[in-house]
Amino acid sequence: MTGARPGGFGYVTPENLALLVDLYELAMADSYLRGGMNDRATFALFVRSLPPNRAFLVSAGLETALAGLEDLRFTDATIAYLAGLGLFSDAFLAYLRAFRFTGDVRAIPEGEVFFPPEPLLEVSGPRIEAQIVETFLLNTLNYQVMVASKAARAVLAARGRGVVDFSPRRDHGADAALKAARAAYLAGCTGTSNVLAGLHYGIPVVGTMAHSYVMSFSDELEAFRAFARDFPTNAVLLIDTYDTLQGARHAATVGREMAARGARLRGVRIDSGDLAAHSRAVRAILDEAGLRDARIVLSGDLNEHRIAALLAQGAAVDAFGVGTELGTSADAPSIGGVYKLVEDEKGYRVKLSTGKATLPGRKQVWRQLDAEGQPVGDLLALADEPGPPEAAPLLVEVMRHGRRTWAEPLEESRRRCTERLANLPEELRQLDDGMAYHVALSPALQALRARMTDDG
Amino acid sequence: MTGARPGGFGYVTPENLALLVDLYELAMADSYLRGGMNDRATFALFVRSLPPNRAFLVSAGLETALAGLEDLRFTDATIAYLAGLGLFSDAFLAYLRAFRFTGDVRAIPEGEVFFPPEPLLEVSGPRIEAQIVETFLLNTLNYQVMVASKAARAVLAARGRGVVDFSPRRDHGADAALKAARAAYLAGCTGTSNVLAGLHYGIPVVGTMAHSYVMSFSDELEAFRAFARDFPTNAVLLIDTYDTLQGARHAATVGREMAARGARLRGVRIDSGDLAAHSRAVRAILDEAGLRDARIVLSGDLNEHRIAALLAQGAAVDAFGVGTELGTSADAPSIGGVYKLVEDEKGYRVKLSTGKATLPGRKQVWRQLDAEGQPVGDLLALADEPGPPEAAPLLVEVMRHGRRTWAEPLEESRRRCTERLANLPEELRQLDDGMAYHVALSPALQALRARMTDDG
Repeated sequence: MTGARPGGFGYVTPENLALLVDLYELAMADSYLRGGMNDRATFALFVRSLPPNRAFLVSAGLETALAGLEDLRFTDATIAYLAGLGLFSDAFLAYLRAFRFTGDVRAIPEGEVFFPPEPLLEVSGPRIEAQIVETFLLNTLNYQVMVASKAARAVLAARGRGVVDFSPRRDHGADAALKAARAAYLAGCTGTSNVLAGLHYGIPVVGTMAHSYVMSFSDELEAFRAFARDFPTNAVLLIDTYDTLQGARHAATVGREMAARGARLRGVRIDSGDLAAHSRAVRAILDEAGLRDARIVLSGDLNEHRIAALLAQGAAVDAFGVGTELGTSADAPSIGGVYKLVEDEKGYRVKLSTGKATLPGRKQVWRQLDAEGQPVGDLLALADEPGPPEAAPLLVEVMRHGRRTWAEPLEESRRRCTERLANLPEELRQLDDGMAYHVALSPALQALRARMTDDG
Repeated sequence: MTGARPGGFGYVTPENLALLVDLYELAMADSYLRGGMNDRATFALFVRSLPPNRAFLVSAGLETALAGLEDLRFTDATIAYLAGLGLFSDAFLAYLRAFRFTGDVRAIPEGEVFFPPEPLLEVSGPRIEAQIVETFLLNTLNYQVMVASKAARAVLAARGRGVVDFSPRRDHGADAALKAARAAYLAGCTGTSNVLAGLHYGIPVVGTMAHSYVMSFSDELEAFRAFARDFPTNAVLLIDTYDTLQGARHAATVGREMAARGARLRGVRIDSGDLAAHSRAVRAILDEAGLRDARIVLSGDLNEHRIAALLAQGAAVDAFGVGTELGTSADAPSIGGVYKLVEDEKGYRVKLSTGKATLPGRKQVWRQLDAEGQPVGDLLALADEPGPPEAAPLLVEVMRHGRRTWAEPLEESRRRCTERLANLPEELRQLDDGMAYHVALSPALQALRARMTDDG
C-alpha cells in the first residue's frame, strides 16, 4: 500500500498489462513458489449459466487474449512497485523478472456459438503461470463474449439490415470501446463509429453528423449543403434536429443538387421521435425526389427488441445504429465467466462450495448436427474420451508452450459466426426465452463427478 | 474502410488516444475547417436525468480526463490511417498533424455530489477542438461517474465497514478495471484487488486467496498453514471451499499457531452460503480461539442492498468485497451523459429534438446549504449571473488554453466525497427512491430558454 497520487490518464500497455491482476493471484503464486508447488495444472474458463435473456453465447476475444498472454511480462518498474508493497519474497520477485507465459491453451475459436457450462478455454501449464493469468483472461474474455452475444441478438433481429456499433461514448472506458467494436463486428455488425477500432482491427468505420453540426449553421439547409459539398459520396445527413419531415425535405433538396453535379447523397439518419412512422414518411420524400438509393439509418436508444418492433411496424430502414445497449449489454451487463482448477499432478480437482461446484478434468465439447447442419445437442466429455461418431470437437489447440498455434483473420471468425447464427435452431434465434439447448455430460464425466462429490 | 486484420491485443496509448473518437466528430471537424467555421464554441457535458435507483451522482474522472486532453495528438501512424480512409481533406490532415487541445475547461471537482441537468464539465475553445474531444470525454467521464455513484451507495450501506473493489474480472475490459478501482476509491472504498490501479493511482491493494489455492493442497489445514507461513501478517484465509464452519475451525487452529510464533492472522473470507449466519458463527469460533483481531471479509455477488440486508441481519463483518455489481453498476450500467453545443460566436445555442432539448449558454451551479451544512437545493444559472448570497459555485476553472490549472491528490478528492456523502440529506442517502433533490433554473436562464424555444 502506498500513498495515493493523481496518476494521469492511466494507460494499459504491454509493459504493465501483467499487473492487471488481482493481488491474491500474486500472493498465491508466491506461496506456490515458496512451497515448491509449481506442478502442471489445468484451469478451465467457463460460464456457469446463461445470463438473463440469452439463449446462447458467442465466443469472442480469443485473438486479443492470446496476444495479451504473449505480451505478459514484469518490467523493472512493475517489479519495483510490487517490491514496495512489502508482501512478496525476493525469490518470487526474481521469478517474476524472468516470467513469460509458457503454458498450453485450448479454446473454442472466435465466432462459434457455445453454451454453459462448456469451457470456452482451458489453460494447462506450470501452476504459477496458469494462476497469474486468471484475472487478465477473465477481464478480456468475459466482456467480449458478453458484447458478441448481445450484438448477435441485434443482428438476428435486424434480419439482414445493417447494425452499426455507435457505443464508444457509453462504453466502460477506452478498452471497452475498442473491444466492443471488435466483438460487435465479429458477431455480424457491419461497422463501428470508433476510429481507433478501425486502426487496430481494420473494422469498417462509419459515421454521419451530430445535432451540434446542424446547430452550428444559420439553418438546416445551409448545414446540409456544407456537409454535402465536403463529402460528395459519404454524406449521411442527420434530419431530426428541428423537424424530421422538414429535415427530410431539406435532405431531398440537397440530394437533388448533389445528383445534378454528379455527387450522390449517401443517406439520412433519424435519431428521435416515432422512428417507424417517420422513416416511412422520409422514405416517401426521398423516393419522390428520385433518391431511391439514399439510405435511412435509425438510431436512438435502440436494442434488439426495438429493432424487431420497428421492422414489425414496417419501418423503412437500411441500417440501425446501436450504442449504449450494445456496448454495455444493458439487460445483462456481465456474463459471470469463472476460471477454475480442474486438474493437477495429483489428479482431477473439483470445487464443492454451495452453488459453485465445478466439473473436474480437461474437457472437450462435441457438437452434434442434424442433416440440415443444425446443432441438436452438445456432449461435454473428458478431453481424452473418444467423441461420438460424426460429432465435431469445439475446443482446438490455440497455444503451445506459450507460442500461438492459432490465428485467423477477424473476417474469418466473423464468417464463422454468421454461419453459426444462420444454422441455429429457430427457437434459439428468438429474442424471448425459448427452448434451452441440450448440453449432456458424458457417462465418464458424470461418473467422475459423482465419485469426487461423494469422496469430497 | 480497410480490410480486417487480427490486430493483437489492441492497446490504447498516448499515441493513439486521439483516435478514440466517433468518425463523425472528424467528419464534422473537417467540414468546419473547410468552411472556415473554427469560431469559439462552448459544449456542456451533462446527464439529462438520474439513472434508475440513483438519488445523486458523484463527480469522478476529471483528473484522467484532463490528463487525456493534454495527451491528445495525431501521430504519423494515425494520420496515415485516416488518410487511407479516403474521406478527409489534405488541409484537415495537415491540421490534425499540428493538433493540440488549446481550449478552456470548467468542471465540478472530483468527489463532489451533483444532479441532472447540471453541467459536470464545460469545454470552451475553437469549435473544431471542442468537437473532436467529445467522444473521449464522454467515454472517460460517463463510466467513472457511473462507478463512483454506484460505489457511494455501497459505502453508505456499509455504515463504516470497509468496502473493497473486487471487480477486475467482470469489468468491461482493462481500462474499465483501472478506472473502476479509482472511482470506487474516490467514493470511499478502502482499496482494490487490482494491482495495476495500485501502480497507477497509488490506491491500496488488498487480497486474500482463491478456492483453487485451497484445492491445491491435500487438505484445507495444510493450505492455511502454508499461506500463514508465507504471509505472517497479511494472511486472509478463504474458509468456504469445503465447509465454512470447519474452515473457520481450521483458520482458528492456524491463527493460534501464528500467535504462538509471534505472527498474526489477518482474517478470514466467506464467499458463499448464508453469509449472515455463517459470519456470526465464524466470529464466535475466532473469538473463542482468542483471535478477536482477526477480521471477517464477506464477498460473493454483493451489492448495496445485500450489504444493507447483511448488516440488518446482524452479520459479523469488517469488510465487504464487491465485484461485478460495483464495476458494471449492474442495475444502471450507463448514465447517459451527453455533450452539447450551448454557445458559439453567434450567441446561445439550443437543441430542440423531441425529448432531447438542451439548456443554452455557459452555466454555473450554485449550491445552497442550511445551517448544518446540508445542501438544500441548487440553482442552475448562466455563468455570468451573480450567485445567490452565501451559495457556493460548483464549477471551477480546471484548464486554460489547454494547460491544466487544477490538480489535486486523489486522497483529497476522496475526502471531499466522504464529507459530501456525510452531509447529504438523509432522504438522499437511502437506497430506495426517496426525495428528489431540487435543482432550480435561474430566472435569467428560464427566460432565455423560453425565448429561444419560442423563436426556435
